[in-house]
Order: sequence, then C-alpha cells, then structure tokens
Amino acid sequence: MGTLLTSSLLNTKPPLQRMTDTSSTGPRQPGDLCSEDAFLALIDRCFPSAHHDVLLGRGDDCAVVACRESLCVTSDLFLEDAHFRMAYFTPEDIGYKALAVNISDIMAMGAKPLGFVLNLMVPRQLERGFWEAFFQGMAELAVEHDLYLAGGDLSGAPYLGVAVTIWGERPPGGKFLRRGQARPGDVLFHVGEIGLARVGLTLLEGGVHVPEESSAVHADQDYPAAVRAHLRPTLHPDVAMALSRTGTVRGLMDVSDGLARDLPRFLGPDLGCALTLDPEILHPELHVFVRKNGLDAAEFAVLGGEDYALLGAVAARDWAMLREHIPAVRRLGEVTAETGIQLNGKEMRSRGFDHFYR
Amino acid sequence: MGTLLTSSLLNTKPPLQRMTDTSSTGPRQPGDLCSEDAFLALIDRCFPSAHHDVLLGRGDDCAVVACRESLCVTSDLFLEDAHFRMAYFTPEDIGYKALAVNISDIMAMGAKPLGFVLNLMVPRQLERGFWEAFFQGMAELAVEHDLYLAGGDLSGAPYLGVAVTIWGERPPGGKFLRRGQARPGDVLFHVGEIGLARVGLTLLEGGVHVPEESSAVHADQDYPAAVRAHLRPTLHPDVAMALSRTGTVRGLMDVSDGLARDLPRFLGPDLGCALTLDPEILHPELHVFVRKNGLDAAEFAVLGGEDYALLGAVAARDWAMLREHIPAVRRLGEVTAETGIQLNGKEMRSRGFDHFYR
Repeated sequence: MGTLLTSSLLNTKPPLQRMTDTSSTGPRQPGDLCSEDAFLALIDRCFPSAHHDVLLGRGDDCAVVACRESLCVTSDLFLEDAHFRMAYFTPEDIGYKALAVNISDIMAMGAKPLGFVLNLMVPRQLERGFWEAFFQGMAELAVEHDLYLAGGDLSGAPYLGVAVTIWGERPPGGKFLRRGQARPGDVLFHVGEIGLARVGLTLLEGGVHVPEESSAVHADQDYPAAVRAHLRPTLHPDVAMALSRTGTVRGLMDVSDGLARDLPRFLGPDLGCALTLDPEILHPELHVFVRKNGLDAAEFAVLGGEDYALLGAVAARDWAMLREHIPAVRRLGEVTAETGIQLNGKEMRSRGFDHFYR
Repeated sequence: MGTLLTSSLLNTKPPLQRMTDTSSTGPRQPGDLCSEDAFLALIDRCFPSAHHDVLLGRGDDCAVVACRESLCVTSDLFLEDAHFRMAYFTPEDIGYKALAVNISDIMAMGAKPLGFVLNLMVPRQLERGFWEAFFQGMAELAVEHDLYLAGGDLSGAPYLGVAVTIWGERPPGGKFLRRGQARPGDVLFHVGEIGLARVGLTLLEGGVHVPEESSAVHADQDYPAAVRAHLRPTLHPDVAMALSRTGTVRGLMDVSDGLARDLPRFLGPDLGCALTLDPEILHPELHVFVRKNGLDAAEFAVLGGEDYALLGAVAARDWAMLREHIPAVRRLGEVTAETGIQLNGKEMRSRGFDHFYR
C-alpha cells in the first residue's frame, strides 16, 4: 500500500546508481532482515491475513475492510527516545505498547477495536531477532483483541519509530462515548491504575533519589507492577464496552498525559472538579515510592502520565447502579461548575508536563 | 487522538523535572510553533473540522466517520532523506506529496478517497512559516479531493517525517480494482506519465552528467515538467473512478516504483508481458534527457520510479471501447502466459531499484 511494499526511496545510494544497479544490495547477514520480502514474510507469519471483516487483505494498493454505519478512528506515533527507550523496553514491549496506546484510544470511545495499519521506521542495525520479538509482542495483543492488520508501510530510517492507525465500531447496544459531556454534580470515576506508570517511568529513567538506600533501585525487582504499568499498560476492553452500553455514562476518555492534564480536556473549558482521592485506590507500590521520596501520594497520582486508565462521568443518581453493575469503576470525585481542579480540598496548580516542549 | 493531542513524552528533560515543572517550557520565539495548541490552531485553520461524513471531528480520543458497506484503506510514510529532500522540496511540495502518494493508492483501487489521519514528526528547528506552507500544500490537495482530516498525532523528532493513513470507498456503480486479475492476451494500459518523474528525481539529486553542457543544469528551468512530476505528481481521480465503473477493466494499481518493478506485482508470479512502448507516449523532456545522456528512452521510462501513474489491464476485445470511452488510457503492451518483461522485443533484465537496501 503502501501495503507494506514501498519503502525508502532516496537513502543509501546516489540515485542513478540506485536506479540502474539492482544486483549489489550489499552483503546480507543470515540473521538479518535485508529485504522487504523478508520483512513481509515475517509479518505474514505473525499476523494472519484472513479475517471475517477483511474483504481484501494485505498486498494490494489498499486493503478493503467491512464496516457498518460508522467507524471511530485514531492514530498515534510511538517513537524511540520520544515515547520509549531502547535501554529498558524489550522488543516485545515496544511492539506491545505501540499497539496498546492506540487500542486505548478506541476503548476511550467505549468502542470495539477492529483493525489497524502499521508504519515502521526501520534502523538498519536492528536484526531479525529484534523484529521477531517486536512482532510477537504486537501480535499477542492483536490476537487478544481479534484485530486484523490491514497493511502499512516500511522505510529505512535513522531511528526506530512506529505509527499505528486503528479503527473500531460502536459495540452492539452501545454508543460512542465522547469528552465534554459531563455536567456539574456528576460523579467522576476511573478504571485502571492512576499514577502507577509514573512510578515505573520515573524509576526506569533513573531520575529519582532514594535517600534511604545506598544501593541502586532495581526497578523491575522492587516495583514490578509499576514498571509493567509503564512498559505494558493494562487495557480494559470489556469494561469500556460495558460502559458504552449502560446508557447512563455521559463521557469517557483515556488518561495518557496524567489526570491533571487530561481532566480539563475531559471536562471542557467551563467546568472543574473536586477530587476526593481515597489513598486506598492507589497501588501499594505507589505508596512505597512516594513515602521513600517524600512525595504526596494523591498529588503524585493525579499528575501521573502514561496511565492508560479510563476516565468517565455519570450523573450522581446513576452512580450506585453503575458501581454495582461494573465493579471496576472507582470514584474519583465530582464535577463542579467552577473551573480548576480541587484535590482533597486544595487547589492543584501543577498541571503535569506539556508534551510538546521545543 | 491521539487526535493531534499527545506528543513526545520523554525528550528534552529528565523525567522528574519534566513531570513536576510545568512553567519552564523554554523561551518562545514569536515566529515559532512552540506548543501543541499553536500547531492545532494552525491545522484547524487549514483543514475544516466539519464535513458531511464526519460525525465527530478532531479533538476527542477518536474521530467518528460515516461509512457505507466497506472501505479501502492504505498508509504511506513520507520521510526526510528517505522519500524527499529538504534541499529541493519546498514546504508546500512536502505537504502536497505526502498526501498525494496516499491518494494515489486509493485511485489505484478505482476508489473515491474520503478522509485521512496525519502523523507528524516535528524537528524543533522548523519554524511557523515552514508549517504554514506545509499545511497549505497539503490542504490544497485535500480541498481538491473533498477530503476530511480526521485526526492524527504530533511528536518532536530529530528529523521531519509524515505518516498518512487514508481511506476511500467504491464509487457509485463501480467496483474495487485489484491486482493479479489480468489474463494472457489482455491489453496493458497506463494513465499518466511514465519515466518523467525519474528524469526529475535524477536531475534534482544531481546524479547526472550532461557532457554537452559545461554549465550546471538548471533542473526546474530546463525540465519543468520532469521536476514537477517528481515534486507534485499528477493524480487522476476521475479517470480512476471511470475505470472502476466500466465493468471491463480487470485490474488497476499505481506505479510508484517504476513499471519494471511494479508490473510483476500487478501480473502475479505466473504471467509476464510484452511491452511495445511507442516513443510518442513519452514526454518530450524525457526524450531530451535520454538523448543528452546516451540512454534508451523506452528502457529508462520502464525502469522509472515515482511515476504515480496508473497501470491496468483489459480484455483485448474491450480495448477499443475503453480507449474510446476513456481517452486518457494509453496502450503499453499485452499480457503473456510466459513470465518476464519483453520490451520492444527484447527481454528486460534490470528491475529498477529495491527500495529496501540496508
């Protein structure tokens, strides 16, 4: 398609030579993925081309996929040193998370993910073993969600990058859940861990002082859940679709930049919220971490980042029934007619980080 | 969505600092696009959010778009120094071609393009003026094809890159046109210039000797059509949809890697073709170029590359009517039961370039 067939045009050789000389593609290592064909064969092994919704699979100019009425669509980049580090992500983790962050946006609509396309920026030094593991991590998640891979593109590039576009549909009996639908007095709730991935990211980046301990922190040993929350965020497909079918949930979004930044996006410019964060909803590893670092648990959690939790709102009168019906929801606080975020009675001023520093 | 809202997570600052410090985003230049908000405002100015097929526009976790029965979908990367060079592409050209190569894949199905998502890898040194021109070039094409922009993602990155995913639908009364449908004896035809973009690319890359002239070639002055063919490929939407509606055209694809490489993809492993390339179908600038460089016009054109022409097949008995009905089609040759490419009676051995050199 594109369809994983066109790749880098200009790199590696001067054009006339490249255009006229087809024999000298350089020495090939046996463990290497030197050609598009080798890449495509590997992809075919990991991602079946047949699927009941795929009317024409990979390998043509386009794929043709079935759709019913409407689709929700989203796209996310996942780039080396911007969204992940090769130093502490395994190849499986990279493949897994590149797709997971996209699925999370579909969940955030209360929708069912259907299929995706995959663009890969391929640095030449990565070997076959890397790609086998990468695709395995991604395919694991695709199988779990019954997702088809409809196509994409490959290109040589100086660093590793992944661009996924994914689409989904309204679940039977459900509706798409949007942002900006909450009203004053609504109960705010979340699904999934808040702040835990921030512990993991902080530890993995090594940007933390642990004054009580002289030896280095072994992040994945001492904080396995936190590290996993950053590397392999847990998704909540069944909960998301159940929320879509309640008919009472007013809105939903995924919390990827931390509640402090994402709450205003969810509420819109005219509303605020009063959060009453029960420490019990926060993960034990987060409590250990903030205690050792002299931080406030609730504030740390609300600043968050990389949570890939779900944030929703429901009328106060519907809250009890929602909680009974979907036990995974946890109360965060309530929507207020005044803007700003109150956290346990105090105004929050920090909004976490602007991702787009230049 | 992602929706053009999440961006680079890890770069620029150590994580703890980045996470807790929201004030110091660095000095902002007045001409600079320092924030996502500034980027999004610019995108909103260039790409209207409302469209009759867009049920929910940019700014939520997903966009929601209408669809009817099925969609064709494709995705292409367009990366600096892999697919284009900043040295000779204007910002408008980059925006234009990044979208054009994707639209071309939709045309190649005989389909009508509907909408797209845009992922941008943003190097920090590019200023507002660059992006205004980039989006203008892209928006020009989007307006021409009545395309909506449904969302995407932004990230800081060390070099400029664009990943577009685009979708389309079967035109009323038409069908999707696939590869691998041709039969021996069919007439092969093309729509659009063959080999002309290769002249442009070769000149722009400076990889050519012009022994007759002592002064440098001024590519865009002496070869304006060739240069334009590479920078701003001409698309053929009306022809593509008309071909889809004939009911006789057996298959269609877009020629992006040159006929020599794309013909086998179009024909499949069991067929070949005999090309009888009339020099008259080649552009006058190509003839000048090959004469000055001592090259064979037909072979140069068939090696091609970056043509973004359409390649199709039709039963011999339907050819005359097709040509009468759609005058833009030009005869290339015929499909043979023997594999390989015969060009004007001689076997072609060169297959052009493998894009995926490592």
